[in-house]
Amino acid sequence: MQLKGLFTPLITPFNDNNHLNFSTLDALVEIQIESGVAGLIVGGTTGEYYTLDDEERETLIRRVVARVNGRMPVVAGINALNTAEGIRRAKQAEDLGCDGLMMSPPAYSLPQQHEIESHFQVVADATPLDLILYDFPDRAGVTIEEETVKALAAHPSIVGIKESSGDMSRLLSLMGQDLGDFRLICGCDDQAADHLWWGVETWISGSANIFPREQAELLRLAAAGDQAGLREGMRGMLPVIQSMESGAYNQKAKLGAGLRFELPVGDVRQPLLPLDDSEVENFHKLMESFNGE
Amino acid sequence: MQLKGLFTPLITPFNDNNHLNFSTLDALVEIQIESGVAGLIVGGTTGEYYTLDDEERETLIRRVVARVNGRMPVVAGINALNTAEGIRRAKQAEDLGCDGLMMSPPAYSLPQQHEIESHFQVVADATPLDLILYDFPDRAGVTIEEETVKALAAHPSIVGIKESSGDMSRLLSLMGQDLGDFRLICGCDDQAADHLWWGVETWISGSANIFPREQAELLRLAAAGDQAGLREGMRGMLPVIQSMESGAYNQKAKLGAGLRFELPVGDVRQPLLPLDDSEVENFHKLMESFNGE
Amino acid sequence: MQLKGLFTPLITPFNDNNHLNFSTLDALVEIQIESGVAGLIVGGTTGEYYTLDDEERETLIRRVVARVNGRMPVVAGINALNTAEGIRRAKQAEDLGCDGLMMSPPAYSLPQQHEIESHFQVVADATPLDLILYDFPDRAGVTIEEETVKALAAHPSIVGIKESSGDMSRLLSLMGQDLGDFRLICGCDDQAADHLWWGVETWISGSANIFPREQAELLRLAAAGDQAGLREGMRGMLPVIQSMESGAYNQKAKLGAGLRFELPVGDVRQPLLPLDDSEVENFHKLMESFNGE
Amino acid sequence: MQLKGLFTPLITPFNDNNHLNFSTLDALVEIQIESGVAGLIVGGTTGEYYTLDDEERETLIRRVVARVNGRMPVVAGINALNTAEGIRRAKQAEDLGCDGLMMSPPAYSLPQQHEIESHFQVVADATPLDLILYDFPDRAGVTIEEETVKALAAHPSIVGIKESSGDMSRLLSLMGQDLGDFRLICGCDDQAADHLWWGVETWISGSANIFPREQAELLRLAAAGDQAGLREGMRGMLPVIQSMESGAYNQKAKLGAGLRFELPVGDVRQPLLPLDDSEVENFHKLMESFNGE
Repeated sequence: MQLKGLFTPLITPFNDNNHLNFSTLDALVEIQIESGVAGLIVGGTTGEYYTLDDEERETLIRRVVARVNGRMPVVAGINALNTAEGIRRAKQAEDLGCDGLMMSPPAYSLPQQHEIESHFQVVADATPLDLILYDFPDRAGVTIEEETVKALAAHPSIVGIKESSGDMSRLLSLMGQDLGDFRLICGCDDQAADHLWWGVETWISGSANIFPREQAELLRLAAAGDQAGLREGMRGMLPVIQSMESGAYNQKAKLGAGLRFELPVGDVRQPLLPLDDSEVENFHKLMESFNGE
Repeated sequence: MQLKGLFTPLITPFNDNNHLNFSTLDALVEIQIESGVAGLIVGGTTGEYYTLDDEERETLIRRVVARVNGRMPVVAGINALNTAEGIRRAKQAEDLGCDGLMMSPPAYSLPQQHEIESHFQVVADATPLDLILYDFPDRAGVTIEEETVKALAAHPSIVGIKESSGDMSRLLSLMGQDLGDFRLICGCDDQAADHLWWGVETWISGSANIFPREQAELLRLAAAGDQAGLREGMRGMLPVIQSMESGAYNQKAKLGAGLRFELPVGDVRQPLLPLDDSEVENFHKLMESFNGE
Repeated sequence: MQLKGLFTPLITPFNDNNHLNFSTLDALVEIQIESGVAGLIVGGTTGEYYTLDDEERETLIRRVVARVNGRMPVVAGINALNTAEGIRRAKQAEDLGCDGLMMSPPAYSLPQQHEIESHFQVVADATPLDLILYDFPDRAGVTIEEETVKALAAHPSIVGIKESSGDMSRLLSLMGQDLGDFRLICGCDDQAADHLWWGVETWISGSANIFPREQAELLRLAAAGDQAGLREGMRGMLPVIQSMESGAYNQKAKLGAGLRFELPVGDVRQPLLPLDDSEVENFHKLMESFNGE
Repeated sequence: MQLKGLFTPLITPFNDNNHLNFSTLDALVEIQIESGVAGLIVGGTTGEYYTLDDEERETLIRRVVARVNGRMPVVAGINALNTAEGIRRAKQAEDLGCDGLMMSPPAYSLPQQHEIESHFQVVADATPLDLILYDFPDRAGVTIEEETVKALAAHPSIVGIKESSGDMSRLLSLMGQDLGDFRLICGCDDQAADHLWWGVETWISGSANIFPREQAELLRLAAAGDQAGLREGMRGMLPVIQSMESGAYNQKAKLGAGLRFELPVGDVRQPLLPLDDSEVENFHKLMESFNGE
């Protein structure tokens, strides 16, 4: 899988009955492709994977793969609470025609590092698909420590790590390791320009649901060495991104995408709840400020 | 449901093929009942619920309910990543004849307090069964704040909270609130004597898989006001409990139960991995020290 | 030094000119003695040592030692940012006639464990006075880890540790170590009853500035095995203590002592600032509730 | 004061008797000036201020001011445990001819935000010198929250903040605030290139004791827009800087400076302790790798 450029962990649109909204889903896929995005993650955290039942999961992946139809790689988010489920989801993704996999350590069970390492290795061994690690300790309850990353980077089909800890010192430390062609991937949207400036070439961006074209453009500016453009582009998006990261990330990803592309993406599913009116209004104002630039 | 006394979140035994081991399961149930335990949690954290598929889950609950056959209450652990799944599991537990439910906030999705509150309320409204809250922030990634506990304690079928934060100051603060007949439940095994001394009458104890009789006895000593006995009993178990809480809790729960009751409880399932030989030996020594007292 | 019973880290009273208020200081000492307190800490954290200049420090210690005049032990708080200063303060305390010393690891410089261990040893070696360790990681930025406590407990003049981490599991773990006649000391006022119940015989209590008689009585109840009395006494003070621990500890210690003993103890010194009117009023109400019992 | 460029918080050299080593001090000052550094901090954290007595403090500042003799600004580190001491140190610095002040919130006493704000304001009001805020929560126990920074930035003589939290997201957020000519200052050496790239023009660098010329050059490269040079220069220093930040920062600052400039800078003072032989050897190897580039 070509793991370079902007990858969008796609929001999962629901209709008024709280079912998958296929027409909006198709429209979102087309918007992402037209915007110059390099690839999609389906069934990821921003896609509220943890609210999908097994049938919905399969239907969702199948639909996105079909709609994309080879125009870009499709990566399946395969977070699982245990290793066997991770393997099942990996094989399902392979069967459904996905190009890659992304997975965090299992949440809740607090595995130790050697257990995290084995979990990823066993899942990676189960399919020929490329696997992206995902480090987001606030969610998973555990981090993938640097030594574990180094060990896993040696696996032929473990191809990169989405860094969402927000710890720039960790990124700089990992950049100093010899990790071969294992990719460090920006997973911290507000720090994206820093990642790109340091030579990171991949960005998995939840906020690309709102800013696909602008963020794909950021990657081009970075590759072209246009520093002023990179900073200016980043600065323009920061207020919205910072608002997302301050709370209600998923609600705002949907709100922003719906607003920007005039699509009925629907609400988040419970346990998350829609924003209240004043929160919606505040976020709208931030969006308008962006548009007004 | 009578929510008083020692409740054991039962380990889930597996056989050599890594399937549910029914004969050991039955034997464990009998041991717990004979030991004077007040109730069982099935499909809880110590039961590695996060490694069970849907069919195993149903089979496990059905088997335990049948074996117990009304001799004590059976509570289903119904942790779920989303609210709809929580409702399904609550109804399943009701259908299978359980007497109560226990649930932590959804892991991974980092819900805010109003979302945590709604999650519990919606699930509690879905069945007539009593629901026990479970606060274990290290695992869930979020805590159930005191104000949220107070709000939920007013719900007629939300009957208590298993306190596993390890924060004694929080317990003392909650004890100062007027929570009606809502029960504060010890969920921190090494601090059990303190809870009991303060008047807590319920203990949900993972280490009761190893020490059912001794811990049931602790509750009797506490009720009888036998302070010296309570302290001495607690002190005797502390080295084993502290070892469990220092890491590999589930592995040691199984190791200890298997050793003590000479039953083939099997290994933990992945993502957790069995202890290595020297860890097993160290834990055996701790167990022997206890037996030698 | 007899290190048993209730020790009060005395507030330092200031007059309207923000100078030491000697007459109030004398009155406070008498109140503490009459109340049955076992000893005093002068120049401790509750005494705002960090706001005293060298001359005030000497004057304060001299005055308290003179006033006490052998009626109870006087311990000097000798927190220091470096080891040489710790030695100077230890020798000063010895010269001024103190009976013991209390010291936390140096704040700000983030020493490692072997540096913390050496810091305490070198200071303890500098005088014949008994030294009490003080673990309060939120303030010092570092903790005295259990292994370090064990090593230091072997020093002949290091006689105990004031436990202010609020971590009951740590206390239970330390109690399981063979520390000879090294004393574990309650330094977490809201958890005092638990400490006493477990056999801890010493309590260094900032809130004893407000409740000297009641807390000395708690220790007597604990020694007499009066469980109901111990719990009832603790419960009565908890609302005030919990308010103190939730913020503005020093301000409330002064406010409460001034109110209770009708003494002009004065305000805290900057960087701390007096409470605003509504905070004062709220704390007064808590005090009145206590008095009204 | 011109607050632009590289400022070095100078190590404080000691001789074999553990007294200030004036000849080395003079030599260090000259090296810093010759290396193109923009200014010096004397009596800062890297200067082990917390181990200096009052007389040494005065002597040290006087000597550095005299030696510099107007060739660059000299900033006094004036960290103080209370506000009155902060004022005294500010006035002392003014009297001794310093050009500016730098101060963190008071350690140990855990002031609230309004108390932190007042502390800085009162000290800033006490002298005409410019004051630099210093945010290093791991040391001080408290952070200067963004709202407090905004309030303080409005003070005419509070001119900037040294950001040492290591939190790049906080920097990006502060950059989005309208802070007038208040300067954000890099205080996190491993993240310096990121700060410079974003337009930060001031770097207060403990590791500039080792790399004064190289880091001054980094600032020039950044100003000239030489991205490749900036990254390459940063990469070269990162192994040494990351080693410093991983532990024993002050010991390594001294070790590296002594090694590089062949000067007897002496050991750190206690509570810190010199590195053991193997740690020294490891750090020497890192230094040699740098030199060998």
